[in-house]
Amino acid sequence: MTTMENRTYDEIAIGESAEVTREVTRADIELFAVVSGDVNPAHLDDVYASGTRFKGVIMHGMWSGAIVSSLLGVHLPGPGTIYLSQSLAFKRPVTIGDRITFKVTVKEKRDDKKIVVLECTGVNQDGKTVVDGEAVVMAPSEKLAPTAPAVPQVSIARDGGPAVAYVRK
Amino acid sequence: MTTMENRTYDEIAIGESAEVTREVTRADIELFAVVSGDVNPAHLDDVYASGTRFKGVIMHGMWSGAIVSSLLGVHLPGPGTIYLSQSLAFKRPVTIGDRITFKVTVKEKRDDKKIVVLECTGVNQDGKTVVDGEAVVMAPSEKLAPTAPAVPQVSIARDGGPAVAYVRK
Repeated sequence: MTTMENRTYDEIAIGESAEVTREVTRADIELFAVVSGDVNPAHLDDVYASGTRFKGVIMHGMWSGAIVSSLLGVHLPGPGTIYLSQSLAFKRPVTIGDRITFKVTVKEKRDDKKIVVLECTGVNQDGKTVVDGEAVVMAPSEKLAPTAPAVPQVSIARDGGPAVAYVRK
Repeated sequence: MTTMENRTYDEIAIGESAEVTREVTRADIELFAVVSGDVNPAHLDDVYASGTRFKGVIMHGMWSGAIVSSLLGVHLPGPGTIYLSQSLAFKRPVTIGDRITFKVTVKEKRDDKKIVVLECTGVNQDGKTVVDGEAVVMAPSEKLAPTAPAVPQVSIARDGGPAVAYVRK
Protein backbone atom coordinates (compact mmCIF):
# COMPACT_ATOMS: atom_id res chain seq x y z
CA MET A 1 0.00 0.00 0.00
CA THR A 2 1.37 3.34 -1.07
CA THR A 3 0.82 6.38 1.09
CA MET A 4 0.62 10.03 0.05
CA GLU A 5 2.57 12.07 2.58
CA ASN A 6 1.81 15.76 2.74
CA ARG A 7 4.03 18.74 3.54
CA THR A 8 2.68 20.76 6.44
CA TYR A 9 2.80 24.54 6.55
CA ASP A 10 5.65 24.42 9.06
CA GLU A 11 7.68 21.95 6.97
CA ILE A 12 7.36 23.91 3.72
CA ALA A 13 10.38 26.05 2.82
CA ILE A 14 10.61 28.95 0.39
CA GLY A 15 12.14 27.62 -2.84
CA GLU A 16 10.84 24.07 -2.33
CA SER A 17 9.33 22.57 -5.48
CA ALA A 18 7.53 19.59 -7.00
CA GLU A 19 7.39 18.62 -10.67
CA VAL A 20 6.02 16.12 -13.14
CA THR A 21 6.72 15.54 -16.84
CA ARG A 22 3.88 14.52 -19.14
CA GLU A 23 4.17 13.38 -22.74
CA VAL A 24 0.94 14.43 -24.43
CA THR A 25 -1.08 11.78 -26.26
CA ARG A 26 -4.19 11.98 -28.41
CA ALA A 27 -6.01 10.11 -25.64
CA ASP A 28 -5.07 12.89 -23.17
CA ILE A 29 -6.70 15.45 -25.48
CA GLU A 30 -9.78 13.30 -26.06
CA LEU A 31 -10.25 12.66 -22.35
CA PHE A 32 -9.92 16.34 -21.51
CA ALA A 33 -12.47 17.16 -24.25
CA VAL A 34 -14.93 14.69 -22.74
CA VAL A 35 -14.43 15.72 -19.09
CA SER A 36 -14.61 19.46 -19.84
CA GLY A 37 -17.14 19.41 -22.66
CA ASP A 38 -14.75 21.45 -24.82
CA VAL A 39 -15.22 19.63 -28.12
CA ASN A 40 -13.95 22.48 -30.29
CA PRO A 41 -12.59 20.79 -33.47
CA ALA A 42 -9.23 22.51 -32.91
CA HIS A 43 -8.73 19.73 -30.33
CA LEU A 44 -10.44 16.77 -31.99
CA ASP A 45 -10.52 17.10 -35.80
CA ASP A 46 -7.18 16.71 -37.62
CA VAL A 47 -8.49 18.00 -40.94
CA TYR A 48 -10.07 21.13 -39.46
CA ALA A 49 -7.06 21.74 -37.21
CA SER A 50 -4.60 21.49 -40.11
CA GLY A 51 -6.19 24.68 -41.45
CA THR A 52 -5.70 26.68 -38.24
CA ARG A 53 -2.72 28.81 -37.25
CA PHE A 54 -1.40 25.87 -35.22
CA LYS A 55 -1.41 23.47 -38.25
CA GLY A 56 -2.76 20.56 -36.22
CA VAL A 57 -4.77 19.61 -33.14
CA ILE A 58 -3.71 21.27 -29.89
CA MET A 59 -4.24 20.39 -26.24
CA HIS A 60 -6.76 22.42 -24.25
CA GLY A 61 -5.08 25.27 -22.36
CA MET A 62 -6.81 24.32 -19.14
CA TRP A 63 -5.28 20.85 -19.22
CA SER A 64 -2.10 22.56 -18.06
CA GLY A 65 -4.10 24.00 -15.18
CA ALA A 66 -5.30 20.51 -14.32
CA ILE A 67 -1.76 19.12 -14.18
CA VAL A 68 -0.51 22.06 -12.11
CA SER A 69 -3.39 21.50 -9.68
CA SER A 70 -2.48 17.80 -9.37
CA LEU A 71 0.99 18.76 -8.13
CA LEU A 72 -0.63 20.85 -5.39
CA GLY A 73 -3.14 18.14 -4.46
CA VAL A 74 -0.77 15.19 -4.47
CA HIS A 75 2.73 16.52 -3.71
CA LEU A 76 3.09 20.10 -2.49
CA PRO A 77 1.46 20.57 -0.06
CA GLY A 78 -0.57 17.37 -0.85
CA PRO A 79 -3.39 15.94 1.32
CA GLY A 80 -5.09 18.56 3.47
CA THR A 81 -4.43 21.42 1.04
CA ILE A 82 -7.21 23.97 0.50
CA TYR A 83 -7.02 25.46 -3.00
CA LEU A 84 -7.79 29.18 -2.89
CA SER A 85 -6.91 30.61 -6.28
CA GLN A 86 -4.95 30.12 -9.47
CA SER A 87 -3.81 32.33 -12.32
CA LEU A 88 -2.60 30.91 -15.63
CA ALA A 89 -1.14 32.55 -18.74
CA PHE A 90 -1.12 30.35 -21.83
CA LYS A 91 2.08 31.22 -23.71
CA ARG A 92 2.43 28.59 -26.42
CA PRO A 93 0.33 25.75 -27.86
CA VAL A 94 0.82 22.18 -26.63
CA THR A 95 0.33 19.30 -29.02
CA ILE A 96 0.58 15.50 -29.30
CA GLY A 97 4.10 14.24 -28.57
CA ASP A 98 5.15 17.33 -26.60
CA ARG A 99 6.88 16.58 -23.30
CA ILE A 100 5.87 19.22 -20.78
CA THR A 101 7.54 19.55 -17.39
CA PHE A 102 5.19 21.18 -14.91
CA LYS A 103 6.71 22.63 -11.75
CA VAL A 104 5.33 24.40 -8.68
CA THR A 105 7.78 26.34 -6.51
CA VAL A 106 7.07 27.94 -3.14
CA LYS A 107 7.64 31.70 -3.38
CA GLU A 108 5.88 33.07 -0.30
CA LYS A 109 4.44 31.99 3.08
CA ARG A 110 1.89 34.00 5.07
CA ASP A 111 1.92 32.78 8.64
CA ASP A 112 -1.37 34.35 9.78
CA LYS A 113 -3.54 32.03 7.68
CA LYS A 114 -0.99 29.35 6.75
CA ILE A 115 -1.16 30.53 3.16
CA VAL A 116 1.45 29.41 0.66
CA VAL A 117 1.95 31.07 -2.73
CA LEU A 118 3.54 28.94 -5.48
CA GLU A 119 4.92 29.92 -8.85
CA CYS A 120 3.66 27.49 -11.51
CA THR A 121 5.30 26.76 -14.86
CA GLY A 122 5.07 24.33 -17.75
CA VAL A 123 8.12 24.06 -20.02
CA ASN A 124 8.24 21.99 -23.21
CA GLN A 125 10.97 19.73 -24.63
CA ASP A 126 12.56 22.75 -26.34
CA GLY A 127 12.88 24.65 -23.07
CA LYS A 128 10.05 27.04 -24.02
CA THR A 129 7.49 28.06 -21.41
CA VAL A 130 3.99 26.98 -22.46
CA VAL A 131 2.18 28.13 -19.32
CA ASP A 132 2.93 30.09 -16.17
CA GLY A 133 0.99 31.46 -13.25
CA GLU A 134 0.54 31.53 -9.52
CA ALA A 135 -1.32 29.30 -7.08
CA VAL A 136 -2.49 30.32 -3.62
CA VAL A 137 -3.30 27.53 -1.15
CA MET A 138 -3.92 27.09 2.54
CA ALA A 139 -1.39 24.47 3.62
CA PRO A 140 -2.28 21.71 6.11
CA SER A 141 -1.31 22.16 9.77
CA GLU A 142 -1.47 18.45 10.43
CA LYS A 143 0.89 15.77 9.11
CA LEU A 144 -1.09 13.34 6.93
CA ALA A 145 -0.05 10.23 5.01
CA PRO A 146 -3.29 8.66 3.76
CA THR A 147 -3.29 5.47 1.71
CA ALA A 148 -3.34 6.25 -2.00
CA PRO A 149 -6.92 5.50 -3.12
CA ALA A 150 -7.95 3.02 -5.80
CA VAL A 151 -8.13 4.83 -9.12
CA PRO A 152 -10.77 3.72 -11.65
CA GLN A 153 -9.71 2.35 -15.03
CA VAL A 154 -10.78 4.49 -17.98
CA SER A 155 -11.22 3.32 -21.57
CA ILE A 156 -11.80 5.29 -24.76
CA ALA A 157 -13.57 4.08 -27.91
CA ARG A 158 -13.40 6.01 -31.19
CA ASP A 159 -15.91 5.84 -34.05
CA GLY A 160 -17.58 2.70 -32.75
CA GLY A 161 -14.21 0.90 -32.52
CA PRO A 162 -12.99 -1.16 -29.58
CA ALA A 163 -12.47 0.39 -26.13
CA VAL A 164 -8.79 1.01 -25.48
CA ALA A 165 -7.46 1.46 -21.95
CA TYR A 166 -6.30 5.00 -21.21
CA VAL A 167 -2.67 4.93 -20.14
CA ARG A 168 -1.04 8.12 -18.98
CA LYS A 169 2.39 8.73 -20.54
CA MET B 1 -24.56 17.21 -38.83
CA THR B 2 -24.37 19.84 -36.14
CA THR B 3 -22.20 22.89 -36.62
CA MET B 4 -20.48 25.01 -33.99
CA GLU B 5 -20.90 28.66 -34.96
CA ASN B 6 -18.49 31.11 -33.43
CA ARG B 7 -18.93 34.76 -32.42
CA THR B 8 -16.43 37.02 -34.15
CA TYR B 9 -14.76 39.93 -32.40
CA ASP B 10 -16.99 42.39 -34.28
CA GLU B 11 -20.18 40.50 -33.39
CA ILE B 12 -19.41 40.24 -29.67
CA ALA B 13 -21.16 42.82 -27.47
CA ILE B 14 -20.32 43.91 -23.94
CA GLY B 15 -22.69 42.08 -21.57
CA GLU B 16 -23.15 39.10 -23.88
CA SER B 17 -22.92 35.76 -22.06
CA ALA B 18 -22.94 31.97 -22.39
CA GLU B 19 -23.74 29.44 -19.69
CA VAL B 20 -24.03 25.75 -18.92
CA THR B 21 -25.39 23.89 -15.88
CA ARG B 22 -23.66 20.70 -14.74
CA GLU B 23 -24.93 18.25 -12.12
CA VAL B 24 -21.83 16.72 -10.57
CA THR B 25 -21.53 12.93 -10.51
CA ARG B 26 -18.99 10.59 -8.95
CA ALA B 27 -17.91 9.69 -12.48
CA ASP B 28 -17.12 13.37 -13.17
CA ILE B 29 -14.80 13.40 -10.16
CA GLU B 30 -13.19 10.09 -11.08
CA LEU B 31 -12.59 11.17 -14.66
CA PHE B 32 -11.07 14.47 -13.57
CA ALA B 33 -8.80 12.58 -11.15
CA VAL B 34 -7.60 10.33 -13.96
CA VAL B 35 -7.10 13.07 -16.57
CA SER B 36 -5.29 15.40 -14.14
CA GLY B 37 -3.48 12.82 -12.03
CA ASP B 38 -4.87 14.43 -8.88
CA VAL B 39 -5.73 11.26 -6.95
CA ASN B 40 -5.79 12.94 -3.54
CA PRO B 41 -8.17 10.80 -1.42
CA ALA B 42 -10.25 13.92 -0.66
CA HIS B 43 -11.65 13.32 -4.16
CA LEU B 44 -11.75 9.52 -4.34
CA ASP B 45 -12.01 7.92 -0.89
CA ASP B 46 -15.35 8.31 0.93
CA VAL B 47 -14.02 7.08 4.26
CA TYR B 48 -10.97 9.36 4.29
CA ALA B 49 -13.04 12.29 2.99
CA SER B 50 -15.67 11.87 5.72
CA GLY B 51 -12.97 12.87 8.19
CA THR B 52 -12.06 16.12 6.43
CA ARG B 53 -13.55 19.57 6.98
CA PHE B 54 -15.83 18.97 3.98
CA LYS B 55 -17.32 15.75 5.44
CA GLY B 56 -17.21 13.89 2.14
CA VAL B 57 -15.52 13.74 -1.25
CA ILE B 58 -15.26 17.01 -3.15
CA MET B 59 -14.74 17.88 -6.80
CA HIS B 60 -11.33 19.15 -7.88
CA GLY B 61 -11.23 22.95 -7.95
CA MET B 62 -9.74 22.98 -11.42
CA TRP B 63 -12.72 21.08 -12.82
CA SER B 64 -14.56 24.39 -12.60
CA GLY B 65 -11.77 25.91 -14.66
CA ALA B 66 -12.23 23.17 -17.25
CA ILE B 67 -15.97 23.86 -17.58
CA VAL B 68 -15.42 27.62 -17.82
CA SER B 69 -12.85 27.02 -20.55
CA SER B 70 -15.32 24.84 -22.47
CA LEU B 71 -17.76 27.77 -22.64
CA LEU B 72 -15.02 29.87 -24.23
CA GLY B 73 -13.97 27.14 -26.66
CA VAL B 74 -17.42 26.05 -27.76
CA HIS B 75 -19.74 29.03 -27.34
CA LEU B 76 -18.26 32.45 -26.63
CA PRO B 77 -16.27 33.19 -28.75
CA GLY B 78 -16.12 29.49 -29.84
CA PRO B 79 -14.04 28.14 -32.76
CA GLY B 80 -11.04 30.31 -33.61
CA THR B 81 -10.60 31.60 -30.04
CA ILE B 82 -7.04 31.92 -28.71
CA TYR B 83 -6.97 31.47 -24.93
CA LEU B 84 -4.53 33.92 -23.35
CA SER B 85 -5.07 33.77 -19.60
CA GLN B 86 -7.42 32.79 -16.80
CA SER B 87 -7.76 33.62 -13.13
CA LEU B 88 -9.90 31.53 -10.79
CA ALA B 89 -10.81 31.95 -7.11
CA PHE B 90 -12.25 28.85 -5.47
CA LYS B 91 -14.89 30.09 -3.01
CA ARG B 92 -16.77 27.01 -1.85
CA PRO B 93 -16.44 23.22 -2.24
CA VAL B 94 -18.38 21.38 -4.95
CA THR B 95 -19.61 17.85 -4.32
CA ILE B 96 -21.63 15.02 -5.87
CA GLY B 97 -25.20 16.09 -6.66
CA ASP B 98 -24.44 19.81 -6.75
CA ARG B 99 -25.87 21.63 -9.75
CA ILE B 100 -23.45 24.34 -10.82
CA THR B 101 -24.32 26.99 -13.38
CA PHE B 102 -21.16 28.29 -15.06
CA LYS B 103 -21.41 31.58 -16.92
CA VAL B 104 -19.00 33.72 -18.91
CA THR B 105 -19.96 37.35 -19.55
CA VAL B 106 -18.15 39.82 -21.82
CA LYS B 107 -16.92 42.77 -19.75
CA GLU B 108 -14.35 44.44 -21.98
CA LYS B 109 -13.16 44.57 -25.61
CA ARG B 110 -9.74 45.83 -26.71
CA ASP B 111 -9.87 46.66 -30.41
CA ASP B 112 -6.13 46.81 -31.07
CA LYS B 113 -5.56 43.08 -30.62
CA LYS B 114 -9.18 41.82 -30.77
CA ILE B 115 -8.93 40.90 -27.12
CA VAL B 116 -12.06 40.09 -25.12
CA VAL B 117 -12.16 39.95 -21.32
CA LEU B 118 -14.89 37.79 -19.77
CA GLU B 119 -16.08 37.55 -16.18
CA CYS B 120 -16.45 33.87 -15.20
CA THR B 121 -18.65 32.51 -12.43
CA GLY B 122 -19.95 29.21 -11.10
CA VAL B 123 -23.05 29.35 -8.87
CA ASN B 124 -24.52 26.34 -7.07
CA GLN B 125 -28.14 25.27 -6.57
CA ASP B 126 -28.35 27.43 -3.45
CA GLY B 127 -27.31 30.56 -5.33
CA LYS B 128 -23.85 30.55 -3.72
CA THR B 129 -20.79 31.36 -5.82
CA VAL B 130 -18.38 28.43 -5.88
CA VAL B 131 -15.85 29.93 -8.29
CA ASP B 132 -15.20 33.24 -9.99
CA GLY B 133 -12.49 34.75 -12.12
CA GLU B 134 -11.59 36.37 -15.39
CA ALA B 135 -10.68 35.02 -18.82
CA VAL B 136 -8.73 36.89 -21.49
CA VAL B 137 -9.01 35.61 -25.06
CA MET B 138 -8.20 36.76 -28.56
CA ALA B 139 -11.50 36.51 -30.42
CA PRO B 140 -11.69 35.25 -34.01
CA SER B 141 -11.86 37.79 -36.87
CA GLU B 142 -13.37 35.28 -39.24
CA LYS B 143 -16.85 33.75 -39.07
CA LEU B 144 -16.54 29.98 -38.59
CA ALA B 145 -19.15 27.24 -38.28
CA PRO B 146 -17.22 23.95 -38.36
CA THR B 147 -18.95 20.61 -38.12
CA ALA B 148 -19.02 19.39 -34.52
CA PRO B 149 -16.39 16.63 -34.36
CA ALA B 150 -16.99 13.02 -33.36
CA VAL B 151 -16.43 12.69 -29.63
CA PRO B 152 -14.96 9.42 -28.30
CA GLN B 153 -16.96 7.28 -25.89
CA VAL B 154 -15.41 6.95 -22.44
CA SER B 155 -16.03 4.16 -19.92
CA ILE B 156 -15.02 3.83 -16.30
CA ALA B 157 -14.43 0.59 -14.38
CA ARG B 158 -14.10 0.54 -10.58
CA ASP B 159 -12.35 -2.13 -8.51
CA GLY B 160 -12.18 -4.62 -11.36
CA GLY B 161 -15.93 -4.26 -11.97
CA PRO B 162 -17.60 -3.83 -15.35
CA ALA B 163 -16.87 -0.79 -17.55
CA VAL B 164 -19.73 1.71 -17.33
CA ALA B 165 -20.25 4.35 -20.02
CA TYR B 166 -19.51 7.88 -18.81
CA VAL B 167 -22.58 10.04 -19.31
CA ARG B 168 -22.37 13.73 -18.60
CA LYS B 169 -25.28 15.02 -16.52
